[in-house]
Amino acid sequence: MPVEKISSLQNPRVKQLVKLRDRRPRDETGVFLVEGYREIRRALEKQVPLRELYFAPEWFLGENEPALLSAAEAAGAQLFELTKEAFAKVAYRERPDGLLGVAPQWKRTLEDVPLTGRAPFLLVVEAIEKPGNLGTILRSADAAGCDAVIVCDPVTDIFNPNVVRASTGVLFSVPLVVEESTRVHAWLHGKGIRTVATTPAAEKLYTDVDLTGPLAVIMGSEQYGLSDFWLKQADLSVRIPMAGQADSLNVAMATIITLFEAVRQRSR
Amino acid sequence: MPVEKISSLQNPRVKQLVKLRDRRPRDETGVFLVEGYREIRRALEKQVPLRELYFAPEWFLGENEPALLSAAEAAGAQLFELTKEAFAKVAYRERPDGLLGVAPQWKRTLEDVPLTGRAPFLLVVEAIEKPGNLGTILRSADAAGCDAVIVCDPVTDIFNPNVVRASTGVLFSVPLVVEESTRVHAWLHGKGIRTVATTPAAEKLYTDVDLTGPLAVIMGSEQYGLSDFWLKQADLSVRIPMAGQADSLNVAMATIITLFEAVRQRSR
Repeated sequence: MPVEKISSLQNPRVKQLVKLRDRRPRDETGVFLVEGYREIRRALEKQVPLRELYFAPEWFLGENEPALLSAAEAAGAQLFELTKEAFAKVAYRERPDGLLGVAPQWKRTLEDVPLTGRAPFLLVVEAIEKPGNLGTILRSADAAGCDAVIVCDPVTDIFNPNVVRASTGVLFSVPLVVEESTRVHAWLHGKGIRTVATTPAAEKLYTDVDLTGPLAVIMGSEQYGLSDFWLKQADLSVRIPMAGQADSLNVAMATIITLFEAVRQRSR
Repeated sequence: MPVEKISSLQNPRVKQLVKLRDRRPRDETGVFLVEGYREIRRALEKQVPLRELYFAPEWFLGENEPALLSAAEAAGAQLFELTKEAFAKVAYRERPDGLLGVAPQWKRTLEDVPLTGRAPFLLVVEAIEKPGNLGTILRSADAAGCDAVIVCDPVTDIFNPNVVRASTGVLFSVPLVVEESTRVHAWLHGKGIRTVATTPAAEKLYTDVDLTGPLAVIMGSEQYGLSDFWLKQADLSVRIPMAGQADSLNVAMATIITLFEAVRQRSR
């Protein structure tokens, strides 16, 4: 198929790509941006049906881009070649690599959470504000082998370009559900999954409790910590010991510490 | 003392503050930038002798700034009031809070590492490239209660404004030494401190080795991992189990996981 070339900064597609940085146009159109070689490759690996792929060879950093373009086209994406200047306008990153995809959003529910034969291992995060933190948290959940991440009452859109970026594309592989806290709690309770909340006010250390068996680790938001709802409803509260400044651990760091202690206990 | 007011963007002090974002002018003048309320407060708490403090009330976010200015002046800093526009020019952050300090750099050597009565607990990081990662690593070391962080063969200047920022001012509290790998190894060996290197190629899991006693955890750089030198010289190599994508854990995440497993073992 011949590839359409775009050089005008006034091209409607160029304007639309810039708009997709904001949540409202994303919600209205039901699509989101996937920028960068690694992220696009992972989207393709996970059968995310990229609709469009914009590229500018003058920004390419390596030699594998043509193969990626072919793979995207074979998977059904429409290709558009942009001039260096036009790509600079649509690129979200400071240092673009000449590749920008548009993918359809998806919506997963609690019923989609894969509960396999072994004991479920879930991460629940509440009202995370910073896209970068959410992306890092997704990476941690992936590394720790969580079955899913459940985002309660989100402040951040999971399709924010900074989430895609900070997750290095893990967004495409870790099952991610967005749902209200009350429903999540009822669902976890119904499935017999124990909830362990992390809060600095807890008495018990996270290393002194049993983190094996069906488990959901609950983490609060950056600024406010866990809501009263989860503090009251969680089966157990634990804290991480802190030797230095009170705010040295942010929510992403606290999450990875707790998840890997669970991994340690569960692998015994 | 009357406070000098600066409104011209051509003022030599304004120009000098912009220059201090780069390493060479920092090295030549022996000073560095400390931007933001939290960071400046921590510098003052740790008796870092701020030389100058630039402020612009129009950017202030809270009500505690005047008290901070008084404390800085009492500690010997010269105050300068800037117009909104002049401060926008000198501010390094995207969202400035109207406070920018200039502090003298310091240099600590291995002899300055505080080795108290109990078993030393050190973190050694090699050739870290990203200032944000170095800042996060400093926070982790602070939270874990490390006695010091030793940076070998640095690529990143520890006085880079992004290190100050990402460390949230922990740079002022965690003893930080910059030194060549060979000297660091000889010093650790001489002090009887065991070196445990983290590398994906190791056979043993980090949770299956003894991390109590005199300990230095060794972490490699983002892109290249540990150098051959440390892979050969370390007393022990360990790996972190990885359930997901191979690169889901970056060096800052691997560091905090390893340090907190050491904290767990050492607190028993």
